[in-house]
Amino acid sequence: MSVSGIITLLTDFGLSDVYVGVMKGVLSQINPHLTVIDLTHEIPPQNLMAARFCLMNAYPYFPQGTVHMAVVDPGVGTERKAIALQLPNGYVVGPDNGLFGGLIKQYGVITAVELTNHQYWRNSQPSTTFHGRDIFSPVAAYLASGVQITDLGTVINSDTLMSLSMPNLEITETSIKGSIQYIDRFGNLITNIPGDMVADKSWNVSFPECTPSPTISSHRTYGEVQPGHLLTLIGSHGWIEIAANGDSAKSRLQIDWGATVIINY
Amino acid sequence: MSVSGIITLLTDFGLSDVYVGVMKGVLSQINPHLTVIDLTHEIPPQNLMAARFCLMNAYPYFPQGTVHMAVVDPGVGTERKAIALQLPNGYVVGPDNGLFGGLIKQYGVITAVELTNHQYWRNSQPSTTFHGRDIFSPVAAYLASGVQITDLGTVINSDTLMSLSMPNLEITETSIKGSIQYIDRFGNLITNIPGDMVADKSWNVSFPECTPSPTISSHRTYGEVQPGHLLTLIGSHGWIEIAANGDSAKSRLQIDWGATVIINY
Amino acid sequence: MSVSGIITLLTDFGLSDVYVGVMKGVLSQINPHLTVIDLTHEIPPQNLMAARFCLMNAYPYFPQGTVHMAVVDPGVGTERKAIALQLPNGYVVGPDNGLFGGLIKQYGVITAVELTNHQYWRNSQPSTTFHGRDIFSPVAAYLASGVQITDLGTVINSDTLMSLSMPNLEITETSIKGSIQYIDRFGNLITNIPGDMVADKSWNVSFPECTPSPTISSHRTYGEVQPGHLLTLIGSHGWIEIAANGDSAKSRLQIDWGATVIINY
Repeated sequence: MSVSGIITLLTDFGLSDVYVGVMKGVLSQINPHLTVIDLTHEIPPQNLMAARFCLMNAYPYFPQGTVHMAVVDPGVGTERKAIALQLPNGYVVGPDNGLFGGLIKQYGVITAVELTNHQYWRNSQPSTTFHGRDIFSPVAAYLASGVQITDLGTVINSDTLMSLSMPNLEITETSIKGSIQYIDRFGNLITNIPGDMVADKSWNVSFPECTPSPTISSHRTYGEVQPGHLLTLIGSHGWIEIAANGDSAKSRLQIDWGATVIINY
Repeated sequence: MSVSGIITLLTDFGLSDVYVGVMKGVLSQINPHLTVIDLTHEIPPQNLMAARFCLMNAYPYFPQGTVHMAVVDPGVGTERKAIALQLPNGYVVGPDNGLFGGLIKQYGVITAVELTNHQYWRNSQPSTTFHGRDIFSPVAAYLASGVQITDLGTVINSDTLMSLSMPNLEITETSIKGSIQYIDRFGNLITNIPGDMVADKSWNVSFPECTPSPTISSHRTYGEVQPGHLLTLIGSHGWIEIAANGDSAKSRLQIDWGATVIINY
Repeated sequence: MSVSGIITLLTDFGLSDVYVGVMKGVLSQINPHLTVIDLTHEIPPQNLMAARFCLMNAYPYFPQGTVHMAVVDPGVGTERKAIALQLPNGYVVGPDNGLFGGLIKQYGVITAVELTNHQYWRNSQPSTTFHGRDIFSPVAAYLASGVQITDLGTVINSDTLMSLSMPNLEITETSIKGSIQYIDRFGNLITNIPGDMVADKSWNVSFPECTPSPTISSHRTYGEVQPGHLLTLIGSHGWIEIAANGDSAKSRLQIDWGATVIINY
């Protein structure tokens, strides 16, 4: 797979400090002709589930051979591995902490490499707190510039990569039990239930942990219900979502990350 | 008009989710050589007046042939049209909901097109909630890459385009009555009264809806009044503005979007 | 020194308005082939110390010949000078108010120029409130495109440049007294004491203005203390820093910008 010359960045660093700017500087020192695209830098601090979802959601919309660098890294400076992976349609670079688990499950891994080759680091003595600058940025820049992934370190067995534990869906003939895997800034609640599972059906949603639990029915788009009313629909990302027209479903329902959700159809 | 290869983006999507990153991915899939510049993604949710002002304010500072894509779209998935417009100095792409009304009034429309040609969409079955990704981004990328605007769909009469209702200015020999059309993040209150109307004059401002209504006098720049004091001046955008030196005029005056303002000179 | 074609931007404008987008438009009107990288636009309003620190922190990570434009400018429209400086490894453009004092102290100035040549401004009558658009952006674009720095105005003596007053470090055989020069968005407290001064030593930190003053001991990385516990370490920027693992040291200690800090070793 040839490279696209594009690097995407996803972190929980925020934009108020210069951490992200510094990483872009490092990329430009190695190759000023790369195109750098921000996915987001506002992942809630250390929220690996949010990062996992965002990467899964964005990955299919980039050219083949794009390098996706992700740094949400509570274990920086400890024994967690630094890795690069070749997937069927692109590359990822970041810590081995489950961040890439959604992509791996969906697309599979072609080559997994532990980043042990200091030659492609900023220096052989990286800081203990900012591997984004000292390891991941230089590695991503070299990879996006044509260095072979296998030159970056030691090939490892992809079965040994970390994943995040997520409860399996519980499926019956008339219902699916899942959970909220992401909440966007509009307060839309995004489940881990693929829209495909209810295609061509009507359905409704309940939250067993709410008392009383509202029953929310399915629609095609926000505008089909009155302003402020709740609805469930297949979101643009392909997952079943609970929203409120012009309002925050999260606030309305007092629902948080990981909450249990039941689909009846 | 030849294209500049530059696309600007303006949305109310915020930067905490990957919606904006995904749109940039779609742009890069179609043409990785485009230059993409963010105007802002922090338009207050669904605030069409703010979006209209920001587009008007930014447009003159870009090269001829730039494509301005704007997605503040409360009506997504309903019957509102998707449009592209050729203006004398650039192009705009987005929903037909009044967003572009300020530009149209100021510069006029050369060609208006309803985006009906599926060939330039991401696919012929766009999602019902994210036309930014499925229609506007691909259309903007093709337009900025040299596709003719008339190939994007059906030419329509520009008199049928939606506009936002704004009260007209009321002008006497010594006063002008207008309203607050934008509030920036510093709390500066920006009126819909062009600075040209008071050029070479002193003036003062009052807010009839405030009790007691303060009278605020005109200066050339913030530093001409004591820290914390209110002033009125011609802002860098060319409109009459009310500000507080090192403070928020919005908070000080408890004034909100749309408030009535009177200029006396 | 040849130019890299890269311009970095640092401001306190925020991203919710189009001020930053407008500056990027002006840059692209002059030279659409420049690469523009945001350092940050979230400097706390008019906080020159924060801007000074961020510039110092980011500068070494960019290619030789990069132009760093910084606009934190409480004195805009008053008598403060507009300047461009050539440093050994790059250029800076902005107001003469102490912003660049950290860079100057660390690297020295080769050439200092007051921006008096209107030919490289947007027009000879700049607005009184937005020199970022009307003076600094066009000057930065021309400089990054190969215009000689001495063509931009009058050469001035670099000893006359403004600096920010900062108390000197007080050093004994067993202690150093300094202050907090920056607080990042994670609440990490960054001192003005270089990590070099304690290299290969253990040390602890106290805050004489706190009652009771906690004593915080040194570690290599965040993960070496329990979640929520305080530590001091040499940050990735090279300064001694006080942090809390997974928490905000600022909130925990109720410490603010400029607070006195004592290192004992």
